[in-house]
Amino acid sequence: MVKEPRSGCSINLALEIFGDKWTLLIIRDIMLGNKRHFREMLQSDEKISSNILTNRLQMLEAQDILKKQPDTTHKQKYIYSLTQKGIDLLPVITSMAQWSLKHKAIDEESSKHTQNLIDGDEALIEKFVEGLKETHLGHKS
Amino acid sequence: MVKEPRSGCSINLALEIFGDKWTLLIIRDIMLGNKRHFREMLQSDEKISSNILTNRLQMLEAQDILKKQPDTTHKQKYIYSLTQKGIDLLPVITSMAQWSLKHKAIDEESSKHTQNLIDGDEALIEKFVEGLKETHLGHKS
Repeated sequence: MVKEPRSGCSINLALEIFGDKWTLLIIRDIMLGNKRHFREMLQSDEKISSNILTNRLQMLEAQDILKKQPDTTHKQKYIYSLTQKGIDLLPVITSMAQWSLKHKAIDEESSKHTQNLIDGDEALIEKFVEGLKETHLGHKS
Repeated sequence: MVKEPRSGCSINLALEIFGDKWTLLIIRDIMLGNKRHFREMLQSDEKISSNILTNRLQMLEAQDILKKQPDTTHKQKYIYSLTQKGIDLLPVITSMAQWSLKHKAIDEESSKHTQNLIDGDEALIEKFVEGLKETHLGHKS
């Protein structure tokens, strides 16, 4: 059953998909941490529970943000890839990281994988997005 | 009681504050809808309940994202203002709106107050931020 959105506002529609404490951490893991398997995501520092992870992965697949495929190199495993719609979440993630870096006490070790992107100029971000497209969509644009 | 963060990652720290379905809608109302009073926020399309609104406003005040002051023009009312930390959430909100506008079917009427910002060049955004500073912080930078 698809729930009717609370309103048609663009900000609300985004929050109805990833407005929770976990969903964007999964996107972060795949996008910045290069995690592609369920078990790897389960091991992140925030200790997501396996039932929440299963639930969010299914939702992200239904929303066409992630694609789940059998992993050809590991039998009985699945590999998750970002779609273009998923890759397009990068600015949401980097804007959050930028805000935290400006206003919160940040553990430097923990933010090292976002620091480059946040400091980076547009060319660096573009290069990173090209890399994501090659890895996840299987083509250069 | 202040809860220990799940991790020191900058993205996680942001999500621990506003990773829910309501908090950024309140920021949207104040920032883009020019709503400054409790009752106005209660009337938004998404129909936030008064206990969730109270809870989130208190949290945002405790996080130094909003400031609550007696409204000198209306006795017995309070007026909410953004702090600099709150104004700095603008890129988070606009990046979400941009993503939705690219990937979701959007009700044009509902997104007209973000459309200008999203279409806008940097000069327009800078002008908007200056306006926020003047209204909420009471000074030009």
